[in-house]
Amino acid sequence: MLTQITKRADVALPYGDDASALAISKNLVAALKADMLVGTTDMPPGMTLRQAGRKAVVMNVSDFASKGIQPKAAMVSLGLPSGTSRSHVKQLARGVNEGAREYGVHILGGDTNRASDLVVSCFLYGTAKRSNLIRRDRARSGDSVFTSGDFGHQAAGLRVLLGRGKAPKGLRRELVRPALRPEARLALGLALAKTRAATSAIDSSDGLAWSLYEIARASRVGIELQRLPASDLARRFARLNRVSLSDLVLHGGEEYELVFTARKNRLGLLPADLGRSLIHIGRVTEEAGHVAMADGRQIEVRGWDHFAR
Amino acid sequence: MLTQITKRADVALPYGDDASALAISKNLVAALKADMLVGTTDMPPGMTLRQAGRKAVVMNVSDFASKGIQPKAAMVSLGLPSGTSRSHVKQLARGVNEGAREYGVHILGGDTNRASDLVVSCFLYGTAKRSNLIRRDRARSGDSVFTSGDFGHQAAGLRVLLGRGKAPKGLRRELVRPALRPEARLALGLALAKTRAATSAIDSSDGLAWSLYEIARASRVGIELQRLPASDLARRFARLNRVSLSDLVLHGGEEYELVFTARKNRLGLLPADLGRSLIHIGRVTEEAGHVAMADGRQIEVRGWDHFAR
Repeated sequence: MLTQITKRADVALPYGDDASALAISKNLVAALKADMLVGTTDMPPGMTLRQAGRKAVVMNVSDFASKGIQPKAAMVSLGLPSGTSRSHVKQLARGVNEGAREYGVHILGGDTNRASDLVVSCFLYGTAKRSNLIRRDRARSGDSVFTSGDFGHQAAGLRVLLGRGKAPKGLRRELVRPALRPEARLALGLALAKTRAATSAIDSSDGLAWSLYEIARASRVGIELQRLPASDLARRFARLNRVSLSDLVLHGGEEYELVFTARKNRLGLLPADLGRSLIHIGRVTEEAGHVAMADGRQIEVRGWDHFAR
Repeated sequence: MLTQITKRADVALPYGDDASALAISKNLVAALKADMLVGTTDMPPGMTLRQAGRKAVVMNVSDFASKGIQPKAAMVSLGLPSGTSRSHVKQLARGVNEGAREYGVHILGGDTNRASDLVVSCFLYGTAKRSNLIRRDRARSGDSVFTSGDFGHQAAGLRVLLGRGKAPKGLRRELVRPALRPEARLALGLALAKTRAATSAIDSSDGLAWSLYEIARASRVGIELQRLPASDLARRFARLNRVSLSDLVLHGGEEYELVFTARKNRLGLLPADLGRSLIHIGRVTEEAGHVAMADGRQIEVRGWDHFAR
């Protein structure tokens, strides 16, 4: 779609980055983000309408988080299948409001429409200092690569919900929670922006491998992955179901963690509680577009195509 | 949906007005609007994808126009049915870009999703002086009521496209044009804001009668309609098809004209070319919520529910 669009030369974030930004004054920008939740592709079985409404907001907040932007307001357009009751709309709206309020956002308006699918189209607005924005394309050779948390259990949780994997009750509960109730790393994104600790960042909702490739592509660098940030829950699920752990970790999607690059010595500027949860996974190299393990094995890139059923 | 939402006390346009607005600084506001086009309900037969993309933007611009706000940027989320080809997406995107550029807007980003319906979810952003915003709820008894143009041919055009009315070739062409290629009255809206000529305004896309009732409700006034702003094309269609002209004029919908109230002597401040096209249709009275013809007949209110097929 972007090929058909008349571009502005003066945008404050490049086209195709996690969010868009436009100058208000010399160092103040308006930031915008639009991301749509579609029931058939973004609502795993077992997700309630309230959780779907909340998720529609959180997935937008996560993109703002990765750019270091505090969202202020949101607009929400709903597409509602015929037969949607007033009570269903209330549950959806409650979820939307809940997701917004968790991150300091107010819903200002929107509209409702009849549609075949459930559609929750969310639009986020905020303001930020231009000089604090964290782009995808500023990773530099020598930087360290971090994630805001570990991976794999989210993909495992989706498999459980989709009936594609088994887990005993306790594990199951822990696995499905992030799939039904994702969280955006807004406090971390804002702290990275404020301290200017990160050189580049991206939201991981298209999968860890895809996110690494995207930073590498945009920044014209390579990435050497020294450690898979696999969670213990993912390890247990992988063992139990005899599936590939690295697959869960690298090609999951819908994680809403931040993947970012930074000069290692800058991270001391972060509040201790935020710094503690970071996972150092590798380093930025000069080999443009090359994303590989430390032993040289190249990492496969696969697009995250929701969980089409 | 609005009942579930945590309201901000400091919004610059009331909840439920044509657009939303939030302060950036003392007299500068960020304006936001979200309106979704759904193929099955908003695309009459005969409308191309390019026209649909364009319409999705224009219907949002029309809401900004009614508040006197220049839109600057838009985000567009697409829902695409399976089987949508690359060429289809290009046509849609071309239309979206076309609608944006006609009104000085740049598309900054968005996303694409799989959905059962074609969905074009458009979000508009702009900035405005707070003191220039035109609200729905400031009509005062004694004001005159105007429309930005005449009514009836748009509804007739939809009926023709839907096979619910006949028209000879020449008339048919003139009737369907505004239905396939609507235009927003942005220049007029901006001039009304700049001259502070209007006391209240609304976009007429839900029908003229509904718009009049909405101004009356929000402003706690009545409206006496002294003249039906029927177009000649609508007259010809009504005669030919033996349908009610006042029905076409009052209960059409999708017109994208402005309906506004003003002190009559303020309109001299408008540029002459904009002033000439205005139609004086009535006056604001003290009888809260009462919308009637000059002879006392009350005007029926009917919600515009798209053209469900």
